[in-house]
Amino acid sequence: MLVAVRIPLLALRVGLLSMLLSLAPHSLAAAQAADALPSWNDGAAKARILEFVGAVTDGRGKSFVPLAERIAVFDNDGTLWAEQPMYFQLAFALDRVKALAPKHPEWKTTEPFASLLKGDVKAALAGGEKAIVEIVMATHAGMTTDEFEAIVQAWLTEARHPTLGRPYTSLVYQPMLELLAYLRANGFKTFIVSGGGVEFLRAFAENVYGVPPEQVVGSSIKVKYESDAKKPALQRLPEINFIDDKAGKPLGIHYQIGRRPIFAFGNSDGDFEMLEWTTTGSGARLGLIVHHDDAKREYAYDRDSHVGRLARGLDEAPARGWAVVSMRGDWSRVFAPFE
Amino acid sequence: MLVAVRIPLLALRVGLLSMLLSLAPHSLAAAQAADALPSWNDGAAKARILEFVGAVTDGRGKSFVPLAERIAVFDNDGTLWAEQPMYFQLAFALDRVKALAPKHPEWKTTEPFASLLKGDVKAALAGGEKAIVEIVMATHAGMTTDEFEAIVQAWLTEARHPTLGRPYTSLVYQPMLELLAYLRANGFKTFIVSGGGVEFLRAFAENVYGVPPEQVVGSSIKVKYESDAKKPALQRLPEINFIDDKAGKPLGIHYQIGRRPIFAFGNSDGDFEMLEWTTTGSGARLGLIVHHDDAKREYAYDRDSHVGRLARGLDEAPARGWAVVSMRGDWSRVFAPFE
Repeated sequence: MLVAVRIPLLALRVGLLSMLLSLAPHSLAAAQAADALPSWNDGAAKARILEFVGAVTDGRGKSFVPLAERIAVFDNDGTLWAEQPMYFQLAFALDRVKALAPKHPEWKTTEPFASLLKGDVKAALAGGEKAIVEIVMATHAGMTTDEFEAIVQAWLTEARHPTLGRPYTSLVYQPMLELLAYLRANGFKTFIVSGGGVEFLRAFAENVYGVPPEQVVGSSIKVKYESDAKKPALQRLPEINFIDDKAGKPLGIHYQIGRRPIFAFGNSDGDFEMLEWTTTGSGARLGLIVHHDDAKREYAYDRDSHVGRLARGLDEAPARGWAVVSMRGDWSRVFAPFE
Repeated sequence: MLVAVRIPLLALRVGLLSMLLSLAPHSLAAAQAADALPSWNDGAAKARILEFVGAVTDGRGKSFVPLAERIAVFDNDGTLWAEQPMYFQLAFALDRVKALAPKHPEWKTTEPFASLLKGDVKAALAGGEKAIVEIVMATHAGMTTDEFEAIVQAWLTEARHPTLGRPYTSLVYQPMLELLAYLRANGFKTFIVSGGGVEFLRAFAENVYGVPPEQVVGSSIKVKYESDAKKPALQRLPEINFIDDKAGKPLGIHYQIGRRPIFAFGNSDGDFEMLEWTTTGSGARLGLIVHHDDAKREYAYDRDSHVGRLARGLDEAPARGWAVVSMRGDWSRVFAPFE
């Protein structure tokens, strides 16, 4: 009897599916996608994503976008992984200051290093951008690109987040990993466009996000080619090359990708211009913002945060049609599994 | 009788192929590749290419390279298309000077424009790099990126090479088109790394070479983001951003690709450092140089040419293991078909 009951139910489901398909052209993609985004709760944000991907991949629809033009860009800090209590790359730089201190006795009496070495991060960063640039140059330059990559990878293996106690690369958002994979399965090329250092990002983006180095756009310091018949090298210089933040993001996209994205995902006002540039082109476009409103599972911050400040984005999202993704409401799970 | 004779011959061939396969591990890839490179004559250069691709794609061999690391870089001018009697982008700039002259009455009495407008290209370029930069800035800046792309595409459609009488995009080398496709069929990502302007290249690289914008590295001028809720734009500024030539090529590769190539193809000493950087890494590597020695079908020039000068590359190729490709001897056909 059980079998006899099951068959009509299945038939009913197929019938319903067919009916839905005839009503809504994108329902098939949506039905497939529902399984691809298991950590996304049903709601407006997930619906916008499914609807958009369904529309641009529907070869018979008016919003179809050819494969080569399916460019999706993602901010990193606060969008793909956490960014509190400080950008993870800054935590890396602070750890490097401690590791390098024995070779720099002068740091004991020079700011911002003196405060840092006493454990007073707040005082060290009181110098603002100038202090941060000094810390970055002291810790990110003066070695070859290969050496820097090895240092970052060793740090990512050893370092632990100060309050969550997990490796930083385990603090990536599971819903975003699913979204990256879902977009790629639908023919998108996924890029990271971050204010962070491009070489820092490239040291883990391929393993962690499945994004190869050539699809990572970021800030950079200058590099010098040292010619040598046997072993040439790229030396990292203490000089800013490019800042990939705010209005710099559309520029970074232009210089490196050379094509306007149709999908952009950010979380702070540093992503505003990237979202604007992406969503004001012609044809189907989608812009999304992660809203950190989940003090229980992650952090809650927006307008008043010194890290990942989000104010203008919240104000203008409705009029611009950007989807604000509530971490608390839209994500059934925040971080990727970790043991 | 004819049929009866043919069958044993075929059997003999199959037998020979099997024997070869058992002797040389890469012969299968080589046999397939022979058809993929029909415009390459059998010889040392073609053999090097087939051997290299066979080795890095042989999953059981010691020279195997994973898919993600199969990065191939190509110079453009003189490597993928012709570059005589002047770089095609310079021909574009000169045509633009003529087109813009009515709006610039001051050019009649200002060098390098005055000489150019009188048709004396040699006198105009006597000012060297400074003159060229002035011409580039006057013709490549002062419009949006979208406007520039449209101007380049219109020019490529209308303009004709001064002596060959064909559109510039028809002056691409057929053997190189085959090589690009062959490498891609073997899992390589193919990049252009050119001293030319990146936006000029991107206007045709996808259609002509199958290389998408994000895989084009080149020189660039600075761009400014102009924010506007309805129609933001990227404005091209008369300021150099990056020169992707000589020691700049490994830097351009580093900034944009972020991974060291395993295959590089150039033609002039401007490609020397790119070849050096590519071929001095660990594992299987291949560097190649197009030698323009074909005055009959194209041009013959090397050490004394003001365009595409090749001297150090010729001198050092043997010791560095770079393959010098003779246009006259190694290519059965030079240009892609054109009617």
